[in-house]
This record gives sequence, structure tokens and C-alpha cells, in this order.
Amino acid sequence: MFHYTASYTDLYQLSMAQVYFKTGRVHERAVFDYFFRKQPFDGGYTVFCGLQTVLKVIEDLYFSDDDIRFLKTNGFDPDFLNYLKDFKFNGHIYSTREGDLVFPTRPILQVEATLIEAQIIETLLLNILNHQTLIATKASRMKQVAGQAKLVDFGLRRAQSTAAYHGVRAAIIGGFDATSNVKAAQDLNIAVSGTMGHSFVQSYDHEIDAFRDYAEHRPGDCVLLVDTYDTLNSGIPNAIQVAKEMQAKGHQLLGIRLDSGDLAYLSRKAREMLDDADLASVKIAASNQLDEKVIKSLKEQKAPIDFFGVGTSLMIGKPDAALDGVYKLAQHNEQPSIKLSESIEKVTIPGIKQVYRLSDHQGNWIGADIIALRSERSFSTMHSPNDPLKSMNVKPFRTKALLETVMKDGKQVKAPTPVSEIAAYAREQLNKLEPEYKRFDNSHIYKVGLSDELYELRHQLITKNKSI
Amino acid sequence: MFHYTASYTDLYQLSMAQVYFKTGRVHERAVFDYFFRKQPFDGGYTVFCGLQTVLKVIEDLYFSDDDIRFLKTNGFDPDFLNYLKDFKFNGHIYSTREGDLVFPTRPILQVEATLIEAQIIETLLLNILNHQTLIATKASRMKQVAGQAKLVDFGLRRAQSTAAYHGVRAAIIGGFDATSNVKAAQDLNIAVSGTMGHSFVQSYDHEIDAFRDYAEHRPGDCVLLVDTYDTLNSGIPNAIQVAKEMQAKGHQLLGIRLDSGDLAYLSRKAREMLDDADLASVKIAASNQLDEKVIKSLKEQKAPIDFFGVGTSLMIGKPDAALDGVYKLAQHNEQPSIKLSESIEKVTIPGIKQVYRLSDHQGNWIGADIIALRSERSFSTMHSPNDPLKSMNVKPFRTKALLETVMKDGKQVKAPTPVSEIAAYAREQLNKLEPEYKRFDNSHIYKVGLSDELYELRHQLITKNKSI
Repeated sequence: MFHYTASYTDLYQLSMAQVYFKTGRVHERAVFDYFFRKQPFDGGYTVFCGLQTVLKVIEDLYFSDDDIRFLKTNGFDPDFLNYLKDFKFNGHIYSTREGDLVFPTRPILQVEATLIEAQIIETLLLNILNHQTLIATKASRMKQVAGQAKLVDFGLRRAQSTAAYHGVRAAIIGGFDATSNVKAAQDLNIAVSGTMGHSFVQSYDHEIDAFRDYAEHRPGDCVLLVDTYDTLNSGIPNAIQVAKEMQAKGHQLLGIRLDSGDLAYLSRKAREMLDDADLASVKIAASNQLDEKVIKSLKEQKAPIDFFGVGTSLMIGKPDAALDGVYKLAQHNEQPSIKLSESIEKVTIPGIKQVYRLSDHQGNWIGADIIALRSERSFSTMHSPNDPLKSMNVKPFRTKALLETVMKDGKQVKAPTPVSEIAAYAREQLNKLEPEYKRFDNSHIYKVGLSDELYELRHQLITKNKSI
Repeated sequence: MFHYTASYTDLYQLSMAQVYFKTGRVHERAVFDYFFRKQPFDGGYTVFCGLQTVLKVIEDLYFSDDDIRFLKTNGFDPDFLNYLKDFKFNGHIYSTREGDLVFPTRPILQVEATLIEAQIIETLLLNILNHQTLIATKASRMKQVAGQAKLVDFGLRRAQSTAAYHGVRAAIIGGFDATSNVKAAQDLNIAVSGTMGHSFVQSYDHEIDAFRDYAEHRPGDCVLLVDTYDTLNSGIPNAIQVAKEMQAKGHQLLGIRLDSGDLAYLSRKAREMLDDADLASVKIAASNQLDEKVIKSLKEQKAPIDFFGVGTSLMIGKPDAALDGVYKLAQHNEQPSIKLSESIEKVTIPGIKQVYRLSDHQGNWIGADIIALRSERSFSTMHSPNDPLKSMNVKPFRTKALLETVMKDGKQVKAPTPVSEIAAYAREQLNKLEPEYKRFDNSHIYKVGLSDELYELRHQLITKNKSI
């Protein structure tokens, strides 16, 4: 369900493709880069996510008879529509591994295909990668501060319609442990979780009857919502009572959930009350407008919360709600291509490139990536793309290439990786990154620079294009 | 495509349903209200949107064999799963008309069904209505200030994955004229629109060749992007040249598009240059990070822009990105129900209700809605739900009921209205609303109040529940 189609694209991709087709340029080759310019959430890193979704969509892409009919009524050329009927993406894609940490300016993914093919996949590629990368990054920020506590997605009711489906995938890759979203859990093979709503408790005359019925008929995942009437004087005492009754029947109360009030204070009082009743194994879940800053504050106050249920802020990627990822022409007909702009930050980086991550001789990540031409083999200096005064000697460092072939002639080169493995890889990378890049305020700026050759090429093309 | 399924829900809805089922409460009745508490975008009104989507989804709702299997592996009871296999929503829904303007606190939609049925549709209903209402409202704010200019959605590449599909529907209802999104246009029968990207111009050695080829092979919707190199010295002069060549062949250049720089200045210069070349019919389109405030400013500066292409801010509903719509139990087993809270704003409004819009004897909308019990027939005073000192005499006013039966016994009572008609109705309502509610800053607060009887009932239930 929620599958993408070739027609989930901007009309102009097809208009441009028709012109290329009609002018005999069907075999012209092009290279496009996917990258972004600004870290989401004013953070210091971004979790790359959505790759497998996009590869699957591209591999299976075709225009249906309905699509063709619709385009015909919109004035498209019959010969071009015949071509589109048999359209298939046959290009190559080089990409950073999904779950890796990425930084502004550097190509995250490169498409090498015919100009038409590369254009026809642009909108889908941007749509998928921008969304999942945003949500995975948001989730990762929460995971960073949640410590041993588990994170559960509760965001479906405020998500942007069907976006929660892929949003859950991204949340898990970013570090979430479970979701309340049944359909997403089912399709992605991830843990599904849930408690009860206030209306359930309200539907009984007495809170304790609601707890008893739930405990009897859903004993396996029993988490009691304790704030409908009075958390400390009614909800928790009733939950303790029911926990004892469950023990007598050989069951175990999994937890209680706090959904309002001062979560630091209430969780501490709840923990004391539960411990005093010999219910140390009963967990405490908390929800209500949580985000990474609230979770950080709760952890700093040593609130004994075992599960955080996070809704809106995760599923819409608040406050950014969009990643500014772009897709720019880097090479055309074997010639490096550049797009100028009034500001140097928006001038693109030409050519077929590779990106290398630098580490010292002990293998420690030093916080820098160098962008080079794919043909280059060794590097001496790395140059800031935007500030001619900034450069760094890179000779002492080891390099590791980040862009791998993920699609060859329109076919994925390996079987899909389970979401849990991608999540583990993302976790591993985050653990390796120095803490100063993970701060929420004024995080350290990761260095991204150009090799001597690439810096020189870009400079030449700027000069040449300005004189046109 | 992008269809919703019954399993696109929170697990806890099904857990609660199982408890109701297992305790013999399958026939218990309940009434739930859908409403929101805070105007999106700090505005003065909200455009209700998503009703037809949600009614269709509810009418067609069923649990598939895969859903049942998945729930089985998650510990659900076999008898309950048998019940779920044949589940169908058989309840009634009363709703405000789609496209109408709505305000905080008042019920927008009311569900009357069995408790289980009402619970099982909750998440889907919130997900759909919250999203479409947010986007329609954002679109409406832009329409309000765009005057005669046309609005085109360009937001697909930054949208939250598949959410753009229903997002386009909402944008059209809110006042947009067209979209670049081929799939959405195709399914919803709305105008599709697009120009060319910078990569198209870059793929030629000379800008004018790009323009010529496009003009020859897409003459029907030819809008030339003029800012790839130098808008005033290259882009516009080349576009004028090509417009003349098109005229010679009996074609007509539709427009030019500005996508960077100072749009007020450039559009004025472009208009002058086009007019001086006898091309008064060539339109000017503008794009680049537009939202309602930028459009308003451009209009105030009398920028001669005929088409605004709006991307990210529309499709993600920036900056809110979510509407805080909720779904609360109002009645259970024929008894009005209330949910208390520390703050009076969050105490729910009990009972089966109707909402009336007040107008004076000339039929002018006075900016007030009164919430009453459905059984009431006449009203004397309307009371602020949150401030006991505020009330208003409503005897002099005419009333019009806003909640209509839209679903009866699980079936829609009338055929779907085309999106264009809903958009026209939204437009008409917006024209009737006084300008002070439409201001972007400090907009006037629309009055929503309770009838005497309802005010009294709520007060009684607060007192009663506090003493439990």
C-alpha cells in the first residue's frame, strides 16, 4: 500500500523529457547529485534515510495506460508517449550507505543515466529522500538523549496523511524502538505497541473497573493510563491494586502511562509508590508533547521514565517539516556542468565525484569529508567550497570512499537490508561521531571540502560561465 | 493509489475494542466529537477539509486477512479476530459541510455509533481531517492575498512523501488553481501545470536554443525560465526573441518564470520589457520560497505577477505542519460524558450537540457560533465556555444549523461533490467573512459559545465528576 507511481512527479519533468525526445537527444548522458545545504533542526548531523525505498521505486517504475491517456489529453506528443509506454530506468546510482551520517554540500547520492531517465526520477527521489532523512534525523536526536529508555512512535493521528507509513520506517532507522502504527509495523516487521485512551477509562463508572477489564482481556501488553481523573490519588493506587490482582493470577502488569502534568515530578512519585508496593518491575511510560529537548530535560532531572511515547514532533519533523535536499546537474555529455548563483553557497560542484571520510591513523573519525573527482587517487589539501581563505592539509589522514554502486543498469546490485540492520548501522555511526557535533545548541560544524583538482575545476568553470 | 486501510490505525484502538468485545459491550453506543483548540498559523479562521476522503474510507473499511494474521501474532483473541473479520462501520456521522469555515472548540463533526465502531475509526479520521484542514487553510490564506493572480502548487519534491496526493486536493479546496503533481491532477480532475527546470537550460550551450526547442516541442504550455544566467540581460531578451518567432508560426508564448532575485523589481522590469516588445499577453510567473506573507508584500508593491508557484510552505503547511484536532467522547450509553482537565480550555463539552451560526436580520454573518444540545430549539444567551464572565444575548439573531447528516447506518447519504464545487463553496464563505477575521496579525477572535442548557449541563457534570 501507499506505493509510489511514475506519475507521482512534476509535470515539467515530462515536458522537458518530451523536448529531449523530439530533438533526438534520447541517448545523451547526464550525472545529477543529490545533496542538501542546511542541517535540519539547526543540528550538527543528518541521518541519511530512504535509499532502499527509492531504489525499489526506481527499479519498478513504469507509466500505466491511465498515465499515458492522461498525458495525451494534456497535449503530449504521440511518439513521445509511445516511448514513455516502454520507459524503464536503466541508469546507475552511486550512494552513501543508508543510515550513515551526512553533512551539507557533499553529494549523498549520484545518478548517472540518460538525461531523460535522470530527469524522470528527480521528483520521486527528492520526495522520498527529503522526507525519510528528515524524520530519521529527528528520531536520532531523541535517541541520543533517551539513554536506556525506549522510544515509541505515537504520531499517526497528527501525521501528514499517508506520510506516517514511510515516516515509521525512518523513525526506526533513526533509533525508535516501536510504533503504535499497525500497518507500518506489519509491513516493516517492527514492534507494535499501545496502551489505552482516556475514552476507555471514561466509558466505565469507576477507573479501577476499566483497569481490571483491560488487565483481564489484554494481559500480555497491559499498560494502564493513570491520569484520567487524579494521577497520584486515584490512577496509580488503582494500577497498583490491579497489578497485585494480576500477580495473583500469574500475570504481570507491564507498566503505567502518564499523559499530562509535570512528568518529572509525577514519574518520581509513581516510581516511589510502585517500588513501595514491591512493583519494581512495573515500567513507567510518559507521553504528551514530547520532543528531544523535553526528553533531555527529563533525563537531566533523572525522571525514572522507561518509555517515551512521541507523537507530533517526530512524525512531522517539527519544526522544520521539510529537508531542503536538491538534485543538480553535475555533468552532461561527458562535460562537467555548473550552475552559477549570486551567492557562492548556491554555486553547484561540477563533475563525477567521490566523497571520502577522513580518519587519523588510529582510525578515529576526525570530522571531515573531502569531495574529489572520481578519477583522483590521492589528496594533499582540502579547500572550503565557499571561503577561499580556508583550507586544510589532509596528507596525514586515511580516507574511506563513501559512494558505493547501489544500482547498475537499472538493477539494484544487492538484496535489501532489513530495517533493523540499517538502524544498527546508524547507531554505530552516531556512537563514533564526537559529542560536539551532537549538541543541540551551537553544534560544531563538520568540515566538508574540495580536493585540489575539484577546487580548480570549479574555479575554471565559474570563470568560463561568467564570461558567456 | 495511496489508499487508507483499516490497519492504518493505532494499536490501542484494537486493544480497547477487544476489551469491549470480550466484556459483552459490543452494542454499547457512544458519541464522539471532532474539534480543534487552536487556529493554525495564528490565523482567524480555518477551512474544514477532508470530509469526503474520510467518509469514503469509513464506508469501505475492512480488515484484510493479512491484518487478521498480523494481529493474531500480536496476541489478539481469536473470537475478537473473528468479529473483526466481519467488521463494518454501521454508525451515523453528522458534519459541517466541507469547505466551510470553522473555529476552535466547536464540534466540527460528530460520530454516533457503537463504542467499538467509533473507536476503530478514530485514528484514520484524525489523520485525514487534521492534514487536509491544515493544508486547505494554508492555501486559503494565500488565495486571500493573491487577488486575480493564479496559484499553482509546486510542492511535491519537499512534501512529506505520499502526503502530497491528498495535500493537492486540500490546496485546490483552499483556493489553488492548479498543481504540478501529475498523479493528483489525473485522479482529482484538476489542472496540471509546469514549466522547465534550470537543468534543461544548462543542457544547452546557449539559453536561446533551450527556449527555441521548448517552444517548438511544447508550444501549448510554453513558460520559459529566464533566470539561469542573467534575467534582465539574457533570459528576458531571449524569451522575447522566441515569443516573436512563435508568433510568426502562429503560436503564443504563455509566459516567463522568475525563480530568484528580487521578484518585485524583476517582475516590474520584465513587464516593461515585454510590453515594450508588444507582448502584453505574455504572463509573468514567479516562484522561490513563497508564502502568504511574501505574496501579500509583492501585491502591496504592485508586482505584476500573474502566477505564483508555491512549493514547500504550502505542501507541509509551514510553520505549524500539524493541526491539533482531537476526537473526544461526548456521550456514552445515552449519558452525556465529560473529560476534566487542570485547565478549563481542555475540559470537553458533553452531550449530543448541534452548532448554529448566527446572522443578523439582513442575513449578515455576525462572527459567532452557538453550540447547543441537539434537542434545544431556541436560545436566549450564549456563554463563553472558558470565561464565566463572558456572555452575549443571542435573541436578536437568526440561526442556521451547521451539522448535517452525512452518513447514516454506515452509508453516505449523498453522492460525492466534485472538488471544484467544494472549492467554490469555501470561496463563497471566505467572501462572507468580515476582513478583521482574515488579518494575518492579531486577527479578531470569532465568538464560540454554549447555550444556556448546555452551559448548565457542563457545569453540573464538572461538579459531579470532581466529587467522584
